[in-house]
Formats: sequence, structure tokens, C-alpha cells
Amino acid sequence: MKLKLTLLLLLAATASTFAQSADSLMLRKIYDEELVNGQCYQNLHYLCKNIGQRLSGSANAQKAVEWSKKLMESYGFDKVFLQPCMVPHWVRGAKEQGFIVDGTKRIPVAIAALGMSVATPKAGLTANVIEVHSLAELKDLGEAAIKGKIVFFNRPFDPKFIEPGRAYGAAGDQRRAGPAEAAKYGAVGVLVRSLTEALDNYPHTGTTQYDDKVVKIPAAALSTIAANQLSAMLKKSPKTKFFFKQNCQQLPDAPSFNVVGEMTGTENPNKYIIVGGHLDSWDLAEGAHDDGTGVTGALEAVRILKAMNYRPKNSLRAVFFMNEENGDRGGDKYAELAVANKEEHIAAIETDGGGFTPRGFGFTGLQPGALKTMNQVWKPLLEPYDADKLTPGGGGTDIGPLRVKSPSTVLIGFRGDSQRYFDVHHTPNDVFENVNKRELELGAAAMASLLYLIDQHGLKF
Amino acid sequence: MKLKLTLLLLLAATASTFAQSADSLMLRKIYDEELVNGQCYQNLHYLCKNIGQRLSGSANAQKAVEWSKKLMESYGFDKVFLQPCMVPHWVRGAKEQGFIVDGTKRIPVAIAALGMSVATPKAGLTANVIEVHSLAELKDLGEAAIKGKIVFFNRPFDPKFIEPGRAYGAAGDQRRAGPAEAAKYGAVGVLVRSLTEALDNYPHTGTTQYDDKVVKIPAAALSTIAANQLSAMLKKSPKTKFFFKQNCQQLPDAPSFNVVGEMTGTENPNKYIIVGGHLDSWDLAEGAHDDGTGVTGALEAVRILKAMNYRPKNSLRAVFFMNEENGDRGGDKYAELAVANKEEHIAAIETDGGGFTPRGFGFTGLQPGALKTMNQVWKPLLEPYDADKLTPGGGGTDIGPLRVKSPSTVLIGFRGDSQRYFDVHHTPNDVFENVNKRELELGAAAMASLLYLIDQHGLKF
Repeated sequence: MKLKLTLLLLLAATASTFAQSADSLMLRKIYDEELVNGQCYQNLHYLCKNIGQRLSGSANAQKAVEWSKKLMESYGFDKVFLQPCMVPHWVRGAKEQGFIVDGTKRIPVAIAALGMSVATPKAGLTANVIEVHSLAELKDLGEAAIKGKIVFFNRPFDPKFIEPGRAYGAAGDQRRAGPAEAAKYGAVGVLVRSLTEALDNYPHTGTTQYDDKVVKIPAAALSTIAANQLSAMLKKSPKTKFFFKQNCQQLPDAPSFNVVGEMTGTENPNKYIIVGGHLDSWDLAEGAHDDGTGVTGALEAVRILKAMNYRPKNSLRAVFFMNEENGDRGGDKYAELAVANKEEHIAAIETDGGGFTPRGFGFTGLQPGALKTMNQVWKPLLEPYDADKLTPGGGGTDIGPLRVKSPSTVLIGFRGDSQRYFDVHHTPNDVFENVNKRELELGAAAMASLLYLIDQHGLKF
Repeated sequence: MKLKLTLLLLLAATASTFAQSADSLMLRKIYDEELVNGQCYQNLHYLCKNIGQRLSGSANAQKAVEWSKKLMESYGFDKVFLQPCMVPHWVRGAKEQGFIVDGTKRIPVAIAALGMSVATPKAGLTANVIEVHSLAELKDLGEAAIKGKIVFFNRPFDPKFIEPGRAYGAAGDQRRAGPAEAAKYGAVGVLVRSLTEALDNYPHTGTTQYDDKVVKIPAAALSTIAANQLSAMLKKSPKTKFFFKQNCQQLPDAPSFNVVGEMTGTENPNKYIIVGGHLDSWDLAEGAHDDGTGVTGALEAVRILKAMNYRPKNSLRAVFFMNEENGDRGGDKYAELAVANKEEHIAAIETDGGGFTPRGFGFTGLQPGALKTMNQVWKPLLEPYDADKLTPGGGGTDIGPLRVKSPSTVLIGFRGDSQRYFDVHHTPNDVFENVNKRELELGAAAMASLLYLIDQHGLKF
């Protein structure tokens, strides 16, 4: 593309002209503040590069808590505080080893223990492999076929879903429930094809959920390239074995914290509109998109309004939840305290899908007809910023408990363009370098805009 | 983000339910074909890695022409042909050198000759530097201040534009017209801050346009980091000089070609709906996003329909235009031949903004009211694919001449998410690795969908 009159005409024509209402002027100022003075990108840089991985219970998670509190304090919010909660403390231990064993040949492949997995025996574990594609297939095969083997779940992402998150949802039972189910039929270990459409050599970790009534067997993610390789070898030679050795451990629960920064409401100090992400991350990289962009973006949304000297009617909070990845203890604690402190939560926005260009927001819990009215009244305000897709259904893991305990809370999910999310999700590639400054900033400005609109007008259209 | 019921609910709820009309079923099949059997990503890989840079007139451009023709032939289109045109043949020569000269210190900085620039004297060029921020400032300073100096255009991208293409448009006069204007006041050379918001060390090349009535002076792009450095040094010490040496040459015009693949219409073989990008690229990298994704995506749009055994009413063409970057000769030639051959062009879609997730399309030349109707009738069909922003104003450099010569042609610009485009545009970073498979595929499917809808229903709502 080069500079041409046609381009200029195109751009001039697509710049929507919109009524200069107070709201539209305010949104323009929000975007200007962010795009000119944005701080979230440098905050993300610090979180990724000076702290790094921050799995719940780790020393880094504690460092992240302390840094977050100081950062919020530096912004001059009315209140900054911690909410203590106990969190699971799982550690990976020494790096895993995995080999496809073909007779006397040992072919090394990329694996990573699933989060919360148990270790293999110290010397590792070798067994025959049986490939399956669903929990139903596992059940059909039954104990006779499974016992003593390593079950290899190899159902890929379905590329036909437009939103990759749906492919993740559709393939995810293999990782979440596969190990517990396979153990019921006497499997000795589980391998799961990484939950991604990308064909690469990075294993994607993530939590598995054991069943306390069944023995816990070690479980690992296999890169998609390794999964294809193992599958091809099993076709050629069904006696192919697999060896893996992992050294993870479940330590006693550890103390940790949610971190909360608040601009207290001038009219309704006890009514809250919150925006948050999760501060913990998996341990393989820097947790940049998952969910460093979430916490730095959520904080930025409140910082923008503070920097503009906006005085909210209701209390606005940026909430950094702890332990989304393997326990949800922070989300549970926040909801519990909201009830205990009789805080009325008007709405909670969660951003936990990566720091990608905004598309809009999804809503759960609006009154009948409210979304339609919102699309008439607010959509035109958000359209110039391409963040105007206001759709039914939205929320997140951390804010979910709030609606369970306080059913009047409207849950809102920030929707970014998610096509690249599962390239890096839960992998060694989830690093700062894979985040684009403008995408992150546009998301923060979109969330600040929504905070402002809800604060001014509420959600009862 | 992890697998949670809340996520699944969110995803289920955002999956739009839409009427199972013939059109909506067809669009779903188009997306399925592309997302399951897509070939554009592997085609792009070949173009980037086996051919690489393909500046007009180069041997690689010829290789790209031959490969494109063969590829189209392999798809079994009804016609595949070349349209000969003469193109400018500019070569960069040996890599440029640039130094900030501070007394006896020489600090090397990243520069690249602007496309079509002349060389410096063989030994290089050293002169004092005067920093300006606009053509107006240059005029105000006048010959007294400019003569004998290197003019350094350093107006940055304005980050407040939501579409980075607008920031490009707003800053671009410095590169396009800066060297010709500076020469009028006796400047001996020009440096232009790279046209990007990214702060990095890659110079962004691109065409400059000389004025034949004025002496041609050498002009180079400076990386944004180098531009900041030079500006800081000039503030400290206004006597700071700059040395650069570049070896570019304008050779005689060379023969080249547009490449066209056609599915001939069953009802109106002489009515055309075309989709295209440009096959030439700048010479610093692989022209992946500019415009490898354009040509491979445009071809894919037609391939999808062919693979589905769709029989179009009108003739559909994928057009690989030659010489968009520094001459537009291919676009001019296509328009000229369309008139000569009495071809009626219903619509022309251009994709030249990178292979990013689709947002929608911009339109120029629709009848009054047509866009509104289109938004009622087609928008719901495209909404499940998030490619439903149908907006006024659209076109492109290559298809522009078609509307000039055949004013009834509707021009359509493919709109992807452009936030990352100017990170790589015209730099050594415009490589295959910076393209995401799914983003490219979704764009191709969106264009195939629009081809289908126009073919079936026309644009006269």
C-alpha cells in the first residue's frame, strides 16, 4: 500500500461523523488521553520483564501483588487495598522429558506437565499408548483396552469455529477431564494434544481437574507437531511406546491476595462498577496476553478517568484477581467480601482473552430489551472506535461468582479480536513481544469508555 | 483464561443464530471450505520464501509472475492470462550507510533510500541538518535557512487516529513530496522519519515523487529511533551534521505483467466482478502483508468458489496487479484494457492493507440508498463472521483507474484490522512469520462471500 489519493479518500470517508454530544466528546477525550499518554504498555513491560511468570503461590506472584499495589497507589486512587485469600500452590519442578519410544529408538518431543498434574515415578514412566479422540471413545474402549496404557487424547481444534475460543471450549474436555476419566479405566498416564490450531512445537499447559475418588495419574500436554508425529507412528506401529518424566508437586495452600484500586463514587460510594483481569499466570512464560494485558488494561481504564479528573458517581474499581488459572480463589474471595461488606455491584467487566484490538463487549444479566436500547444509544458512540459490537452473553471466570452471590450484577466480557490468542496461550510464547501497543491501548480506552457510560447512565435502559 | 462454564456460556451466547437462507448456507460453506482446506497460507509461504522481494522490473518480479500464472492454471480456472505493461525499474544497489556526525564522532544509524530516490555522490554526502515538521514550515524557512543543508522531516504519526492508515495519510506528505519540495529551496538531501507509530530501528522505505522541473536530491527514511536520536542531538548541538551514502539507480523501464485468472460467467460472461492485490513489493523483505496477503487472499477468494463448483452468473477474476508500489502501471493497464475490450466491470475489490482479521468492506460508487439497504440485507449474513462493517468510502490504488475509465464500476476496499500494519509496512520485518494463518483465511472467505453476494444479487438494491 502506498500513499495515494484513493487511500486518502477512503480514509476520509470512513471517518464517521458523529454528534458532538457530551458523551461522544468524553469518549474522544478518553481515547486521546490513552493514545497520547497511555501507560499500560510500559506497565505490561515491567510485569513481564521485571517480574515474569507468576503462578499462584510463587514468590513472583507475591512480587506481582506488591508491585500492583504500589502502582495503583502511585496513581492516587482513593483506596488501594489487598484482599487476602489462600491459593493452591502447584510447582512444575525440573523441566519435563518426553520421548516416543520406537523399539530401541527414543525420539525426544516437546511436552509440558498439565497444571495440577502429579509427577511420574522418579525414573519416569514408559507404557504403550492408545490414541483416542473423545471421552466417549475412551468409555467405549473400556478398561480392557486402556488398562496399563498411556491415553493420548488427540482431537484437534475444529477450525470451522469463527471464534477460536469456541474451538478451545469444544476441545477442552480432553485436558480438563481426560486424565481423571482415563484413570477410571486403569490408564497410567495421559498425553493431551495442545489446545491450539497452530501447528508448532510449543506445548500448551493448563489446569486438569482430578477426581478425588480415583487415583491421580500424571498428565502432560504434547505440542501439536509432537501429537501429529506420535499419531503417525502409532498408525505405522501400534506398539509404539511413550516415556515421560515430570517432577511436579502440589504444596500446601499458600497465602496470596487480590489487589484492588478504587475511585470512590461521589453520589453512590457503595455502588460499584469494576473492571478486572487476573494477576496470576502460568509458569512457562511471562503471562503477557494471559493475563498481563488484562490487569494492565483494566487498571489503565480506571487510570484514564483519574487522569482526566473525572469524578465518578459510583465507585469504580480495578481488580487484579489472584488464582484464575488453577483455583479461582481470588474471584470467590472477591464475591464473598462483596456480600459481607454489603457492596452493591452494578456491573463487572472482565478482560481475559488477550490484549487484542477491541471488537466490543458481551453482556449477561441485562433486563429484557436493555441490549436493544443499548445498541441504539451506545453503539453509535463506540462505532468511531470500532468497539461497538454489543452482544448477548459475556462474563468471565473471576467475575462469575459475583453474579452467583449478587444476582443483580451485570457481567460484561471484553471482546477483542481473538484469532491469535491460542497461538501463545499457556505457552513459552506468551511474552511481551507478542503484544501490540496500540491494540492494548485501544482496549483500555474501550473499557474506560464503558465504565464512563455505565457510571453516567446505568444499565437499566 | 481457562476452561470454565462461564466461558462456554459466553461463547454459546455469542454464536449468532441466523436464518438458514440459501445465502447464509452458502456463506457457511464458503467459510468451511476455507477454514478446512485453505491454501492461501501455503501459497503465501511459497511467494515469501521461495521468491521473496519482487520490486517491479526485478528478476524476482518476473519469477512471481510466472509462479502466479502456473498457480492459477493449477486451479483449473476458465482463463488465465497475462497483461503486458512496462514498469519503472529502480534498484537500491549496495546497502545504504548513514551516520550522525558530531564533531569527530560518527554514530551509525538505520536508514534506507526512499523508493525512486537518486544516489548520493559516490563518496557520500555530508551536510548540516535542519529539522522541520511540515512542508509549510519548509516554505516559511525558505532558501536562506535551507540551502546546502539536509532537510530532516520529523513529524511523527499522530497516535490519536483510530485507523493507523489515517495517521499514515496525515504524515505521508513528508515522504511523498518532501524531497521535491526541499530541493526547490536548495537542500542537498532529505531524511524522512519512518512512517510508523512504532518506536524501533527499522527504516520504512516507500516511493517519493520528484518534480521534473527541479534537481533530484537523494532521500532516505530514518528509523524512528534514529530520528529521535538525531532530533535530540540537533537540540543539543545545532551544528550536528549527517552523512549518508546510497547507491540507487533508475534503470530503463522493463517489461512486466498483470496476472489474471477468470471463472467465466454463465449468464453474463462480459460482466466482471474482480478481486485483486498487487504482486510487486518493496525490496527490503518478502512483501508478506504488502501485498503477498493481498494477492494470495484475492486468488483464494476465487479458488474457494471454484472448489465448491460454484458457477457464477458473471465473470469473476482474481487480478494480481504489477507495480503498485512505484508506478501504478499495472492498474492503469488493466483499466485501459477493460475499456478496449468493452468489458463491463460491476465491481472491483482491492485488498492492500495487510492480511489481518476482516472487519468488513468500504464502498465507493454505490447508488444513493444502496449502502443502507445493503446494511439491512447483507450485514446480517456477514455478522456471524465479524466481517459486517459495510461503510461508505473504499477502493485502492490498483482499481482506482478502473472507475476513472468506467465510472459505473463500484470500488470496494477490503477492511482488515490495521493496527499492526505500520509495524511492518515497507520494512525488513514484512515477512511471512508476521502473518497469522487464520486471519488471512478469514479475509479470503469474507472476500469470497462478497463475490458470491454481488454475483447473485448485484449492487443495485
